[in-house]
Amino acid sequence: MSKNDKNEKLVSSITPMSEDFAQWYTDIVKKAELIEYTSVKGCMVIRPYGYAIWENMQRILDTRFKELGHENVCMPMFIPESLLNKEKEHVEGFAPEVAWVTYGGKEKLEERLCVRPTSETLFCEHYANIVHSYRDLPKLYNQWVSVVRWEKTTRPFLRSREFLWQEGHTIHETAEEAIAETERMLGVYADFCEQALAMPVIRGKKTDSDKFAGAVSTYAIEAMMHDGKALQAGTSHYFGDGFAKAFGITFTDRSNTVSVPHQTSWGVSTRLIGAIIMAHGDDNGLVLPPAVAPVQVVVVPIAQHKEGVLEKANELYNTLKAAGIRVKLDDSENSPGWKFAEYEMRGVPLRIEIGPKDIEQNQCVAVERHNRNKTFVPLDKLTDVVKERLQAVHDGMYQKALDNLNSRTYSCTSIDEIKSMLENNGDGFVKAMWCGDEACEDKVKELTGVGSRCIPFEQEQLDDKCVCCGKPAKCMVIWGKAY
Amino acid sequence: MSKNDKNEKLVSSITPMSEDFAQWYTDIVKKAELIEYTSVKGCMVIRPYGYAIWENMQRILDTRFKELGHENVCMPMFIPESLLNKEKEHVEGFAPEVAWVTYGGKEKLEERLCVRPTSETLFCEHYANIVHSYRDLPKLYNQWVSVVRWEKTTRPFLRSREFLWQEGHTIHETAEEAIAETERMLGVYADFCEQALAMPVIRGKKTDSDKFAGAVSTYAIEAMMHDGKALQAGTSHYFGDGFAKAFGITFTDRSNTVSVPHQTSWGVSTRLIGAIIMAHGDDNGLVLPPAVAPVQVVVVPIAQHKEGVLEKANELYNTLKAAGIRVKLDDSENSPGWKFAEYEMRGVPLRIEIGPKDIEQNQCVAVERHNRNKTFVPLDKLTDVVKERLQAVHDGMYQKALDNLNSRTYSCTSIDEIKSMLENNGDGFVKAMWCGDEACEDKVKELTGVGSRCIPFEQEQLDDKCVCCGKPAKCMVIWGKAY
Repeated sequence: MSKNDKNEKLVSSITPMSEDFAQWYTDIVKKAELIEYTSVKGCMVIRPYGYAIWENMQRILDTRFKELGHENVCMPMFIPESLLNKEKEHVEGFAPEVAWVTYGGKEKLEERLCVRPTSETLFCEHYANIVHSYRDLPKLYNQWVSVVRWEKTTRPFLRSREFLWQEGHTIHETAEEAIAETERMLGVYADFCEQALAMPVIRGKKTDSDKFAGAVSTYAIEAMMHDGKALQAGTSHYFGDGFAKAFGITFTDRSNTVSVPHQTSWGVSTRLIGAIIMAHGDDNGLVLPPAVAPVQVVVVPIAQHKEGVLEKANELYNTLKAAGIRVKLDDSENSPGWKFAEYEMRGVPLRIEIGPKDIEQNQCVAVERHNRNKTFVPLDKLTDVVKERLQAVHDGMYQKALDNLNSRTYSCTSIDEIKSMLENNGDGFVKAMWCGDEACEDKVKELTGVGSRCIPFEQEQLDDKCVCCGKPAKCMVIWGKAY
Repeated sequence: MSKNDKNEKLVSSITPMSEDFAQWYTDIVKKAELIEYTSVKGCMVIRPYGYAIWENMQRILDTRFKELGHENVCMPMFIPESLLNKEKEHVEGFAPEVAWVTYGGKEKLEERLCVRPTSETLFCEHYANIVHSYRDLPKLYNQWVSVVRWEKTTRPFLRSREFLWQEGHTIHETAEEAIAETERMLGVYADFCEQALAMPVIRGKKTDSDKFAGAVSTYAIEAMMHDGKALQAGTSHYFGDGFAKAFGITFTDRSNTVSVPHQTSWGVSTRLIGAIIMAHGDDNGLVLPPAVAPVQVVVVPIAQHKEGVLEKANELYNTLKAAGIRVKLDDSENSPGWKFAEYEMRGVPLRIEIGPKDIEQNQCVAVERHNRNKTFVPLDKLTDVVKERLQAVHDGMYQKALDNLNSRTYSCTSIDEIKSMLENNGDGFVKAMWCGDEACEDKVKELTGVGSRCIPFEQEQLDDKCVCCGKPAKCMVIWGKAY
């Protein structure tokens, strides 16, 4: 990073969040070098710093999936049109937004192929080939691939025509087992968001109008962004035996009867990178959770031309590296001030400053990104204190995001109350009762601007009546504006 | 694996290599559950056992790439036609075999997009955006993705319409630096094949007729398969400044002059799985190199119903697992004989047998897959001996493959000699001198059936004259039939 002038300007030119949240977001993804645009509309380059965040997410999730018995596979990226058409609701949901391959070289294809928007159909075809007996079940498969959905309006990470994700696809002997898997994987995602991304989430079920195309039920985790909007951070679907029937998947069960298996699918995507930007970032740039930050600690020497400073900075770097911490030493000629701004912009969770005075006192200074809290660290306790501070950063980030979620969640019992809450306090999550009727769901959105996000697992009895029609309420819904 | 009868049959039904090499290969990929066919012609499912081999390859290579300073990125999977057309030789090489996306949902695209067959054009567009000064160089980028080439004839792993690979793309201040990178990465591939895949390779340069479309020079590693045919296991290309000029990539150099950078690209693919099947496999199935085997050691209890056997088998399993060895315990109800055949078919490098008599003598038996060599292992030295035997398996596999390579490499000084050598000894590598003229290259192939594989770095002066035209020879070429 030696283009000093250019970068000084970059750092200073992030649009303040309060001025224009959307522009603030775009500035960060571009200036922290997470992505770059391409001539392919709606598609982007994920740059090294952005991709490294994704690799860290992948490593944590993949390890967890494998601990739970899942195996990785890889399906083709193409789906023949006839295969996509096999499950009616599914094709209706996805066909309008797929990219179609019609030519191979100079030859027109006999049947056009879509680039997978998701791979249920391919997994079903495969399961029909390999599942014959209860002894073949369950299959707990996952793949890490990219998928394509021909979106009209796109935004980096949040909604792009191609995005990276993992898609788990499992098949089970019984409905109970499949439902348990659906719930288990939602739990894995929720834990991941909270423990690795420091991002509290609400676990719940989607209303019928918001289900995945072809699912019996869709579970989701919803996170709140800085601006009070909701971001769906992961979904887990229970399919019942609908896909299996459509694709002719059967197995001989334990009582020697031909039976139809039950399926699930679940996924998270690079959208999570957008989520951590908007859940944690501030006007100085990114704020990255330590668990997925490409660089967890940056060592910045102060007055580095003075004798012994670089040597000591290198020593700290080596100590932290040996302890398995992702650390970077910036001994470039840029000023400490420039470096501070640069690594704040890039969201490095902890900065270590070491200068002549610190060396005299056998200490260094640790500065936390999210709150600029300073700690003087005795050098002989460096590793322990750094680990402790990284944990403190995680905890602090989580608490800050939780406070935002709590302070922007409003319990309401009337349409008017929803309106005035949002008007007076800004966007947020609204808790309100619902009768279960889709007409009311639509009407709430029409009248207040907030749609149903999910029916949270943690229910509260705010009222007996639907917030919209006044008829008996079936459940509490979280309403909000969504990314 | 409890479908005993079915699998007994599977194991026994591998076609012998000597009877039909191609069918032997197909039997193995299918019966060892590496792949499954799909309704997408020329594309396949890579099943868990096959994908785990690829994951192990990825991990080793990715670690090495990163040690050398490379960073992972992710480009879009689509290339607009106008972008593909920018470099003349490149588009001529690839356009005939790409898949074209022409519709997004119901709308015809204004410009059609090809699914990347390789990503030089996308990297060039990106470099034009982000490279401005010598301080921005080099960029050492890599991506792990799948690419699509609309092949007419396909075979699992060896040639499929979609395949997984990594593609490195680097850009440098000088030609020297780019050439050094091209050579360095070929070295990384060669070391990987030899040290991780136990597969000796010949390092060399492709003749001009065999270069990558748009490259100044292409380096390759060539491995020999059991049947004496060559398999190109990896390539590394030096582009000079041709792509940079076509894409308008320039930078301000150290003397403040606008200059054109030099580029490389390099890749290996899931083809390497095909290579290890055909370099190491035998009539009993796969033989996997320990470094990439999903299961390195299988523990098979003998007379497992007898008291203490399963307990001891579990103990061995736990000991090996704790030592970081990829180990599996098969305590299913299948017979030991079935298990032996099953894990031989799956190529597990080392089998540990433990029965009542072994327990009495405080030992177990280790059987090596590639030569069935037996070792009695004192249980208190289990981990050390297992590690030592895995190394011995690697070494033995390497030596066996090297012996095959050496015994099937023929030095020839005339067309007639090439013909008779191949006739009498079967397919293999032919070393013969060449004048450098493409006409001779074509004629050798026409007359003998073997084409130029590469101009090996290790040259020998077999003769002064071209094996074909008799004019002064420029170099020795390795000729052979290729997959």
